[in-house]
Amino acid sequence: MTTQQLVQEIHKKKSFLCIGLDVDLTKIPQFLLELDDPIFEFNKAIIDATHDVCIAYKPNTAFYEAYGIKGWKSLQKTIDYINEKYPEMFTIADAKRGDIGNTSTMYAKAFLEDLNFDSVTVAPYMGKDSVEPFLEFENKHAILLALTSNEGAFDFQTQNVDGKELYKVVLETSKTWKNAQKLMYVVGATKAEYFTEIRKIIPDNFILVPGVGAQGGNLQEVCKYGMNDNIGLLINSSRGIIYASKENNFAEKAREEALKMQQEMESILNATAKKQ
Amino acid sequence: MTTQQLVQEIHKKKSFLCIGLDVDLTKIPQFLLELDDPIFEFNKAIIDATHDVCIAYKPNTAFYEAYGIKGWKSLQKTIDYINEKYPEMFTIADAKRGDIGNTSTMYAKAFLEDLNFDSVTVAPYMGKDSVEPFLEFENKHAILLALTSNEGAFDFQTQNVDGKELYKVVLETSKTWKNAQKLMYVVGATKAEYFTEIRKIIPDNFILVPGVGAQGGNLQEVCKYGMNDNIGLLINSSRGIIYASKENNFAEKAREEALKMQQEMESILNATAKKQ
Repeated sequence: MTTQQLVQEIHKKKSFLCIGLDVDLTKIPQFLLELDDPIFEFNKAIIDATHDVCIAYKPNTAFYEAYGIKGWKSLQKTIDYINEKYPEMFTIADAKRGDIGNTSTMYAKAFLEDLNFDSVTVAPYMGKDSVEPFLEFENKHAILLALTSNEGAFDFQTQNVDGKELYKVVLETSKTWKNAQKLMYVVGATKAEYFTEIRKIIPDNFILVPGVGAQGGNLQEVCKYGMNDNIGLLINSSRGIIYASKENNFAEKAREEALKMQQEMESILNATAKKQ
Repeated sequence: MTTQQLVQEIHKKKSFLCIGLDVDLTKIPQFLLELDDPIFEFNKAIIDATHDVCIAYKPNTAFYEAYGIKGWKSLQKTIDYINEKYPEMFTIADAKRGDIGNTSTMYAKAFLEDLNFDSVTVAPYMGKDSVEPFLEFENKHAILLALTSNEGAFDFQTQNVDGKELYKVVLETSKTWKNAQKLMYVVGATKAEYFTEIRKIIPDNFILVPGVGAQGGNLQEVCKYGMNDNIGLLINSSRGIIYASKENNFAEKAREEALKMQQEMESILNATAKKQ
């Protein structure tokens, strides 16, 4: 998917919501466990119930790898289902991969070509040749970790590198890489006050924002400082939506939570449109 | 496996060689492609031919993920084969994972519990809560990326953080984490001159050293600056050993290459023992 198509979808649906499909078998309705592939059945129900109020789905690969080969089958079925039934969705493999050049190429092919995700999250520590292989695919994107939403973000990401935080050095350096226009970035919602500075460095790129909801981030604040002319934000929510209920009506309840966020987004979009 | 058991194996085999099982179907003998699981058959042959001259095997997960569910089956069969037939081997899942706390726990279980590797490589960018979950398993280890062997290592890892390179900050900070005694580190052989400084920070931990051979690192240099009283080094070689030949005798040729390295290691160990 091109960035332009993504922006069109946002305006069409009045939503920039991304739903994280982080399926933990201990947290889903227990009647699903009797089915052949409970993870896929759970995802399918959530997707069918929410596809018109969100614009992206983001399975975190850890939750699938945790179930071994069975988990990988569920991941494959999930992405195939989205691509076939809802090809307008932007899909993110939240895999946080990164390795030396030829090895990153293997990861990039696995996620962007074989599984056919639109994008994959990538860790920056190994630098340029570990990220560039993810940027070689037409209409595909790498989403680089910049400033994450967890406590450990302050261990290294905000360390002072010659007078500048490391995550800013990551943002600036990555702009010089080949096909950098295909980069998006992860910036946690828990750090809304950082968005002003971040937008000075990457005014145009999309930012994937975890941490709204369960982790305490505030949507209004993030939009105030992080939005650009193309909206430029994908707000992710996982647990707050997919685990809204453990009962038979879990998908309906998930939709209700997603709809609340979509409506808040719609009002932000309308207010922004009026100002312009 | 405990660190003590690993050290015993090193002295028993007079080797601290780790063989990287990075299987690329385009590089293995073509007659294997006719078999049901060429990746596993290749690994099995390499393992049977080299197990007495090396002390560790390290499959890089990218090379298995690249083949989807089939690749994961090959990985599962490979680690099961090693654990059953050669339980004395130290096994490394070279996965370079890392995510927020509860998600890292999923990765840790996948590799250290379900697949039952002795260790897994972990990326440090997300900090403490992304690494500590990998240190909660008895007799298991996390191998943290410090200074990698690729060109991109100079993008961020050697950046100056308040007068000190970032990788040194990573080393120092990680020492304060819970169960830090279970940490090992990745330091590329291409940077042998850095080992003296590194050993001042982590005198006791094992270091996994990629980049000897194909990437140009020098074994003698690495040992001179990196060895400690427990040897403390795992020298990895992948391509130089496993792709020594594409003919029917590929396993035999791989053994020859591994043996050359083991013999060089034996003479280093003997010279070191004499000095003491």
